[in-house]
Parts: sequence; C-alpha cells; structure tokens
Amino acid sequence: VTLAELAQRFGCELRGDPGRPVARVGSLESAGPDAITFLANPALRSRLPETRAAAVILHPRFHGDCPVDALLTENPYAVYARIAGWLHPPAAPVPGVHPQATVAADAVIASSAQIDAQAVIASGAAIGDSVVVGPGCVVGAGARIGAGSRLVARVTVLDRVVLGERCLLHPGVVIGADGFGFAPDGGEWVKVPQLGSVVIGNDVDIGANTTVDRGALGDTVIEDGVKLDNLVQVAHNVHIGAHTVMAGTAAVAGSTHIGRRCMFAGGAAAIGHLRICDDVIVTVRALITRSIDTPGTYSGILPAEAAPQWRRNAIRFSQLDALADRVRALEKALEQVSGTGADTSGQRGKKND
Amino acid sequence: VTLAELAQRFGCELRGDPGRPVARVGSLESAGPDAITFLANPALRSRLPETRAAAVILHPRFHGDCPVDALLTENPYAVYARIAGWLHPPAAPVPGVHPQATVAADAVIASSAQIDAQAVIASGAAIGDSVVVGPGCVVGAGARIGAGSRLVARVTVLDRVVLGERCLLHPGVVIGADGFGFAPDGGEWVKVPQLGSVVIGNDVDIGANTTVDRGALGDTVIEDGVKLDNLVQVAHNVHIGAHTVMAGTAAVAGSTHIGRRCMFAGGAAAIGHLRICDDVIVTVRALITRSIDTPGTYSGILPAEAAPQWRRNAIRFSQLDALADRVRALEKALEQVSGTGADTSGQRGKKND
Amino acid sequence: VTLAELAQRFGCELRGDPGRPVARVGSLESAGPDAITFLANPALRSRLPETRAAAVILHPRFHGDCPVDALLTENPYAVYARIAGWLHPPAAPVPGVHPQATVAADAVIASSAQIDAQAVIASGAAIGDSVVVGPGCVVGAGARIGAGSRLVARVTVLDRVVLGERCLLHPGVVIGADGFGFAPDGGEWVKVPQLGSVVIGNDVDIGANTTVDRGALGDTVIEDGVKLDNLVQVAHNVHIGAHTVMAGTAAVAGSTHIGRRCMFAGGAAAIGHLRICDDVIVTVRALITRSIDTPGTYSGILPAEAAPQWRRNAIRFSQLDALADRVRALEKALEQVSGTGADTSGQRGKKND
Repeated sequence: VTLAELAQRFGCELRGDPGRPVARVGSLESAGPDAITFLANPALRSRLPETRAAAVILHPRFHGDCPVDALLTENPYAVYARIAGWLHPPAAPVPGVHPQATVAADAVIASSAQIDAQAVIASGAAIGDSVVVGPGCVVGAGARIGAGSRLVARVTVLDRVVLGERCLLHPGVVIGADGFGFAPDGGEWVKVPQLGSVVIGNDVDIGANTTVDRGALGDTVIEDGVKLDNLVQVAHNVHIGAHTVMAGTAAVAGSTHIGRRCMFAGGAAAIGHLRICDDVIVTVRALITRSIDTPGTYSGILPAEAAPQWRRNAIRFSQLDALADRVRALEKALEQVSGTGADTSGQRGKKND
Repeated sequence: VTLAELAQRFGCELRGDPGRPVARVGSLESAGPDAITFLANPALRSRLPETRAAAVILHPRFHGDCPVDALLTENPYAVYARIAGWLHPPAAPVPGVHPQATVAADAVIASSAQIDAQAVIASGAAIGDSVVVGPGCVVGAGARIGAGSRLVARVTVLDRVVLGERCLLHPGVVIGADGFGFAPDGGEWVKVPQLGSVVIGNDVDIGANTTVDRGALGDTVIEDGVKLDNLVQVAHNVHIGAHTVMAGTAAVAGSTHIGRRCMFAGGAAAIGHLRICDDVIVTVRALITRSIDTPGTYSGILPAEAAPQWRRNAIRFSQLDALADRVRALEKALEQVSGTGADTSGQRGKKND
Repeated sequence: VTLAELAQRFGCELRGDPGRPVARVGSLESAGPDAITFLANPALRSRLPETRAAAVILHPRFHGDCPVDALLTENPYAVYARIAGWLHPPAAPVPGVHPQATVAADAVIASSAQIDAQAVIASGAAIGDSVVVGPGCVVGAGARIGAGSRLVARVTVLDRVVLGERCLLHPGVVIGADGFGFAPDGGEWVKVPQLGSVVIGNDVDIGANTTVDRGALGDTVIEDGVKLDNLVQVAHNVHIGAHTVMAGTAAVAGSTHIGRRCMFAGGAAAIGHLRICDDVIVTVRALITRSIDTPGTYSGILPAEAAPQWRRNAIRFSQLDALADRVRALEKALEQVSGTGADTSGQRGKKND
C-alpha cells in the first residue's frame, strides 16, 4: 500500500511521496523505512527528528519538525488506530466447527462462524455470521452472539445472554453469572434467584477475567461502544451507557446507572443504586458514593508518600475531628482576647454538613 | 400454584383470593397478573399502588397501601427469595458423563451426577450425588465435591480440595491454587511449597473469577453458608466463619481469621495475621489493619469529590502534620497572650498516639 | 532421609542425632516425630518448647530453646522452603499428549512434555522439555513455553507470547490479551491494535486469574524471578524488573517501568508511564502516582476505624482546605494581637506546593 492510498482512505493530507510503500506500523523509535508511525502526544515531539519511518501521522502544527513524509490530520491517534487496524487485521474466521468442539444439536451456528476446539455451545444458542468462538469457550443455553463478534478463548457467556455485533471478549471473561443477592433470615442467607439476563450492545470490548453479572429480575445492560478493561466487576442490574470506558479493576455495584461517554480510570468504582450522568470522568481509584448530575471530573485518592511522612499525616487524620474542635476553640478564645477577633466566621466548618 | 399454597408453604398470612393462580415472580413494576412480587424496601412503598401483580409479599404495616392480594410476613425479602427459588428452580441434573468429558478411571462419580462436555476429573476425585460439573470444569486429584453442589462452568477445584454440599461455584472460580509464599534469600525468592488444602463447608456460594488459595501447611477454611461475590481474593490459611458474606473485589490476606456472620462490602479488605470477631461489618473498600474484638461497623473511605475541591483537600492532607503543629503553636502563643489561654488542653493530639 | 543428609545438602549445622529419619515437613504445632519444622518468626519462639518434631530448622541464637534436634542456619525460612520442596516435590511430568487434547499439526512438542486433556495448542507453538500444559489450557499460535514450566490448568497464553523456563502459571491466568488502547474520535472509541507481545523470563510465578496484557507496539516484559500473586493486573508495555514481587490484587497501569527487587503489597498499584527504581517497597494498597528514584518504603492507606469516629474525621477531611485557611487567619490575627505573634512562619503550608 502507498502513502497516497492511506491518505485517501483515511482522510489525511499527504506531504511527501505519494508512491512511497508502507507495509506496517511502528513506534517513532522502532519504525523502519517500510513502516508508518504517529505523533499524538506533543511531549514526544522532541523524538520526531530521529525517526526513520516511511512517514508520520501527525497534526499539521508539528509538520515543521517532521524529517520524513507526513500524513496530516486533526486526530493523529485515531487515524493511526484505523491505519494500524487496516494494515494488521485480526485473522479472518475460518468457517466450521472443530471436531473437538461440542455443539448442541439445536444450536444455530452461522455457516461463516468459526467454532474452535474444546468450545461448548449449549442448547438453543445462536451464533451469528463470522463469529469466532475461540478454544475452551462456553456459550450457554439460548445465548445469542451477534455477527462479527469474537470470543478469544476460555470465555463464558451464560444462558440467555445477548451479545451484539463486533464485540471482542478476552479470555476469562464471564458474562451472566448470578448477581450477588441474598436475603438475611435469622443469621443465615437465602439465595435470591437471579432471573434476569445481560444485554450487551454492538462494538463492546471486554478485557480478560472481567465479570458482568445477570440481573435479579430485569437485565444488566451494556450499551454500544462500551470498553471494559481487565478484572472489572459489573454487578447485577447495572446499566452502562454507550461509549463509556472503564480501566482495569474498576467496579460498579448493583443497580447503578452510568451515563454515556463516562470514563472510569483504573480502580475507580461506584457503590450501588446511584445515577451517574453522561460525561463524568472518575479519576484513578476514586469511589463514587453519591449520584452525580453534573458532568465533570471527580477524584478521590491520596497519593502514596515516603512511609514516615505518610505515617505522620495518617495519624493526624485519625485526630482530625479533634483538631478542628481545637481550631474552633482558638477562634473563640482569640475573639475574647482581641475584642474584634479573627474574621474567619464565614469559613467555619459545620460538623454534620 | 395458588396463593393459598404459597401462604401455607412459606408461612405467610394470606389477604385475598386463596385460589388466585401464580406462575412466576416479577418486580413491582414488571409483574403482570400471573406474577407475585414483593415490597422489602420501605422507600419503594410509593410504587405499590401501581402494581398489577397477582399479589405482593410485604410486611403487615404496609398492607393498607397494597391494591392487590397480599402475603403478609415479617421478612418479605426472605420469603420472596424462597418463593422465587421454588417457582424458578435451577435445572435438575441430567445424570451421566458427557462423551467429551475426561474422567480418570479411578474417579468416583455418583450415578446421579452430571458431568458436562470438556470437563476433566482427575484421579481419585469423588463427585457426590446430584452434583453438576459444568462444561470446561477441572476437578483435581483426590478432590471431593459434596452432594448437590454445582460447578457452573470453567471452574477449577485443585488437588485434595474438599467442597461441601449444595455449594454453587460460578465460572472462573479457582479453589486451591498455591498460596503466595516465598522466602527471601540473597535478593531472590525461594518458593515455599503450599502443602495444605482448602476445606469448604455446605451451602457456600462463590462468585465468578474468585480465588481461594490452599494453605501452606494447614488448610484454608471456609465454613458453612459463606457467600463470596466475584473477583474476591482469599489467601492461604485464611479462615472464614459461617454465614459471613463478602461483596465483589473484597480481599483477605494470609492467615487472617474472620468470624461468623461478618459482612465485607465491595472492595473491603483485611491484611494478614489478624483475628476479626463475629458480627463485624466492614463498609465499602475499608481496609482492616488491626485485629477486631468488638462487633460493630468499621469504615475507611473518603468519598470522591469534584476534582478541584478534592485536590485542595488532598494537598492539605499532605501538610496535615505541619498544620497540627501550627495549631499547637497557636495554642501556646494564645496562652501567653491571654494569661488564661484557650482551654483546649484536653483535646491536644499526641503525635505518636 | 536423615538429618545428616539434610544438613549436608542444605548447608546447615546439625545439632543432634545424624541418623534421625525425616519423612515430611510440618508446623511447630503439627509436626510429629517423622517431620521437620522451622522457626523463622522470633515471635513464635514461645511455641518451641512444645514441638514434637524430629528436628527444627532455626537460627543459632534460638538453639537454647529447642527441645529437639536442630539444623542451624542464618536463614531458616529459606532452608525450610528448600527442604520442603525437596521432600514434597511436584509430580514429575508424564510425557505425552492426552488423546482429548488438541494439538496443531505444526506445533512442536518436546517428547518429555505432558499435554493434558482438553488442552489446546495452536499452530507453530513450541512446548519445551518437561513442560506441563494442564487440563483446559490454551497456548496460542507461535507461543513458546520454556523447559520445565508448568501451566497448572485453564491457563491462557496467547499468540506469540514467550515464557521462560521453570515458570509456574496458576489456573485462570491470561497472558497476552490485548492492552486497553482506544483512540477517542467524536465521542466514540477506535481500537488501537495491540501488536506487541509479552516476554516473560525464567522462574516467574503467576497467581490464579492474574492478567498480563500484550504491548501495543513493543512488548510487555517480566524479568527473571518475578512473583505475582492472584488477581494482579499488568497492563500493556509494563516492564517488571527481576525478582520483584506483587501480592494479591496489585495493579500496574500501562507503560510503567518497575525496577528490580521491588515489593508491592496487596492492592498496591501504580498509575501509568512512571519509572520506579530498584528496591522500592509499596505498602498495602498504596497508590504510586509519581516516578520514584529513591529506594525505600512508600505508604498510602488510612486504616479503617469504628464507623462513627471515621465519619467525623472523613467530614473534617472534606473541610480540610477551609480548616487550613482558618489556621492561617488565626496566625495573622494573633500576630496583630500579640505584636510578636506565634513563631510558626516556618511551618506554613503553601496551597499549591
């Protein structure tokens, strides 16, 4: 493929040799003369002059620094992603059912689907066009896998779960296990049957060993374009709006409704029964404990420090309420001493606010 | 089934038509005229008048608001759970070993047990009456699975693990992997063989991708009625008392002993070598760092806030020890100025307390 | 085996009967007269007098308290680990491919390797001498498993991953799933192909359900002797130096470089794109948010407290910036009142420091 073809197909302005051939992508440092690379992070601009790539995908404002041919675009990272996906596509499905797979007689498997060794597909399941069910995957009774979706390996999709088109589920993913519902009764727990299911939209990616539970009565819902990283926990009856992303080890407790285009950083979490509006960013490991109706960024971590310094501050934290009382006492005492006092009344904390 | 049968079987007082038929359960909103629903959370009382259910299971004090027939009970959620389980039972085991399962010649499989496709049962394992070993599960050498237990799919129960009766293990669960034990030796680590096992009681539920490690010398023990949610980590030689529950991503480090009827909320954790008494509640994501001998509720999170506000407070936290010293200096200075001083001496923090 | 043989083989000084036979290891409490035990933690010294073991491995300074024969060494825990591993070795591989495994025609399997039932080995994979690929494992196309490594059960090693020698991967481990890379584009996300791989050194242990993602362009690298516990998340392009250990539920975000001989306690984590030098200890659940160039211990948790006390302090935390402003106002007011003021100027916090 030539630079001219890439420029035309991906909507870039070409600066350089239209006929220059490109075979692969690479990083600014590693790309050789048959590879195209990109500059998205301005902080890496200083590395531009050393690149030996065939061309660089970059924003027009950095073109002056580029020692080789260039594809100019307003969003170089997205264009890079598309070009990389086009030059390095995933292997096309090889239609057919492996003889060491186990497929129920009444499951419906599209003729273009690939069912790998040791996969198990239960009664009534429906596997769409060009789906790949990788080795060791389990698809439960009545589950539906939409066209073009790929279960990489050892994925479990349990009974009646509905998965959209072009989804990508990584190894160890479990969709549709029972939600965690138990009724207390005299010091013991009675299981609450989890009778709902999970409904997942199109173009959803789910990372390795992530779990999405089925609903108790209604369904757990993940809308189109959602991306979940590894080891994420999505509890029963959660609703995740379209194009929301959650990084590794994020967690959402039961029945919480998360809006569209939200971003949960690694380890971020929300407790149950909340409503979080569209366009909320939760920074690393923050814990959302109240519903949010204002888009924006929410934070909640105290960064680690050298242990002796941390210990001093942590002990003070355990005395913080008493410290605040002492400040209040000082304010009162100073008022008496000075007559007029320090004018801090507008800033006084209220204990139960 | 009729309301009269349900009332009798589950010990409720019937208010309404004894012969009214019920086929299923539903939510207050979704239940139609063939379904029974429940009201457990008083906050949902306002939704009662709109229900179209055949009947509602609820506390007698809410009966006045109920527009349809009712089953009255002191614990409507537990009665609902039992009725739902009775109306919607899990599929009964289909006895037999699937031809694409692999069962060692000397494994002992009850004739009523169901062994699904791609399951592997190793030498000397014992599978009890009516057990279901789902697709892709692995049962190690000498492991024992008690009657009525169900390994849903892709569960791993390693060598010599003992699992009680009526347990439910969800996909991806790993019981009996090696505990994390390494001895430091000259900058490297020597593996400490993990020679114990895991012993799990009756009626234990374990959520998807949860891990329970085997003991180093003694066993890891999980008593009757314990319920673990998804992605929970239980380290070697932990002991979890009967009827304790742990929500998603909770974690317990090695050799910690947790009492009976404890509750760990999502992300709650305990470090190793502690003793936590019966009836302790650990709220969301709190980290227990000392043994607890007093039942009660223990907390430990700072809720997320809008990022600018959080950042201001977090910076102040990093200066908290210095702030406390400044307050102490103010107290001393004020004493000098005023003669009598502010009477805050009883509240002074001690730095190393 | 006799005490004399153990003393010679493991470099200890024998105090007692050279011919005393030893068959197994045990704990101080459980070891009977055919078992050897150890004392590593001085806090357990008081239990020495009751042991009924054949012998105790311990430091010379505790020998006076030992009522039975002893092996003296400077590092009793490491010597115990080695003796335990020698007396209780893992089962030797049983060479051969199980008839219910699935092995691609062009995979290269060492004749001494053991491939268990329901394992799947894809095209071009290379399985070294004495490797065990346990039941239900998946080895991707072109992956290489070094001699003596053991994939316990249900492990996934994806395409092109390179695993060194004598590694131990526990059930549910996923090596080489796609890193979490998506480019934002008009409110949606474009997948960034993850074209790198994972390269793992020798003597690496990885715990149950832990995930290690493949690199985006370069590789994710785990050096020799690294030990990862259960449910650990290692993101794309992370580099973990030799002999670093990470306890359960630790997490490392993308492109972070961790030095050698570091220790991450349970739940500890690092955000992305950091450099952490050799010999850094991160205590339980601390979150590293900046690069570290000084070896030492870093901390970051607030221990749980009884809920009412915690709540009071947590509310004060949300008012901490205002409290600091009030202290500043008090200092100014006191200066005016007293003339000289409290001498706290050196300790004043700066808001944006």
